[in-house]
Amino acid sequence: MSVNITSAQLQTMEQRYRATLINSIGGYKSLCVIGTRNRNGQTNLAVFSSLFHLGANPPLLGIIIRPDSVDRHTLDNILSTRQFTINHVHEDWYRAAHQTAARYPAHQSEFAATGLTEQYLTGFYPPFVQESKVHIGAQFRERVDIRHNGTVMIIAEIVHIALPQDALMPDGFVDLAATGSLTVSGLDSYHTATRLSRLAYAKPDVPPASIPVTGAGGK
Amino acid sequence: MSVNITSAQLQTMEQRYRATLINSIGGYKSLCVIGTRNRNGQTNLAVFSSLFHLGANPPLLGIIIRPDSVDRHTLDNILSTRQFTINHVHEDWYRAAHQTAARYPAHQSEFAATGLTEQYLTGFYPPFVQESKVHIGAQFRERVDIRHNGTVMIIAEIVHIALPQDALMPDGFVDLAATGSLTVSGLDSYHTATRLSRLAYAKPDVPPASIPVTGAGGK
Repeated sequence: MSVNITSAQLQTMEQRYRATLINSIGGYKSLCVIGTRNRNGQTNLAVFSSLFHLGANPPLLGIIIRPDSVDRHTLDNILSTRQFTINHVHEDWYRAAHQTAARYPAHQSEFAATGLTEQYLTGFYPPFVQESKVHIGAQFRERVDIRHNGTVMIIAEIVHIALPQDALMPDGFVDLAATGSLTVSGLDSYHTATRLSRLAYAKPDVPPASIPVTGAGGK
Repeated sequence: MSVNITSAQLQTMEQRYRATLINSIGGYKSLCVIGTRNRNGQTNLAVFSSLFHLGANPPLLGIIIRPDSVDRHTLDNILSTRQFTINHVHEDWYRAAHQTAARYPAHQSEFAATGLTEQYLTGFYPPFVQESKVHIGAQFRERVDIRHNGTVMIIAEIVHIALPQDALMPDGFVDLAATGSLTVSGLDSYHTATRLSRLAYAKPDVPPASIPVTGAGGK
């Protein structure tokens, strides 16, 4: 049995129901916690599921921020210091990652509140999460305001990457099975993932062949 | 052992290696195939991993398109007809989804080339993929040009949703375990996912509790 939902139904839907539906209908999402630090040195940590790939040359990514939410400190700090950290989330501390979304008082860092550990890289201002196996240092490049709903897209360049050696394949592929990175659906559902296969570059009239993966998550 | 990659190394990296690294470093991504149809009635189908949530009221999503790639027909058709379909991908046909990325001749539809089936909804111009269990009808709202690398962000409103009844939870949450939707990492690695848990709305000083999921993927 299939359920059909029309535009008219979406418009009159109870607000929280619609938020839950629309947040989860798009499928699995990238999961990370974003670390920032204001000019007074206070740190902030926030869970995000809106990271997307923008291009490899230069290495660019985007995130979406709601300025009226707990994300506001993240936005303020990025705009003022022009740097932030992206940290993958793992099974042994995903509850702490989720907890960073709570509305803590302005003077309280989510690092202290959730028990996660600040880690600093020489020459880079905001903190990474020591418990994370994949660290990305990001430099602010552009702010794009989305006029339809007041959200803000931040475009940033990847200026630093740290990851476990056994997760980096000979062709540059990052084996997320080896890093144990999680994915999220909706606002609150956390998942591990299992590889079916990597497929070779698609060419007309050639059936897609599997590429061997030699890392910890090999298959 | 950890590998550190600097901005200088990223800039001088071999091009395909960098593309593979940067496409996969951000974690798991939403996976879908996007259906479009030009004004002459010819259909097009393309695999995408750049879908992201923009907001629930109105229900908005974004996708990133490279105008110089096989995505070009998708962009042309969206701009000319202002509609497209988003279809989740499942284990029994993910190889066909991947194969839509091949450079087929302009007159050949990826539906015919890959054996996937067009399905039409009354009053909606482009085709859905019959083999997909989750259909989203999207209406073009805005084009945003990303000046850093020539990519294009399309902002669209969700105007129709169809999904299996047993995948829609009482609070509006879509259980992707019940739909059997896949996730992708990098350009070519396809994955199933397994829920750890849903977590309750985060509040300061309250440890995150699990929410029961009553669907097929319940846990």
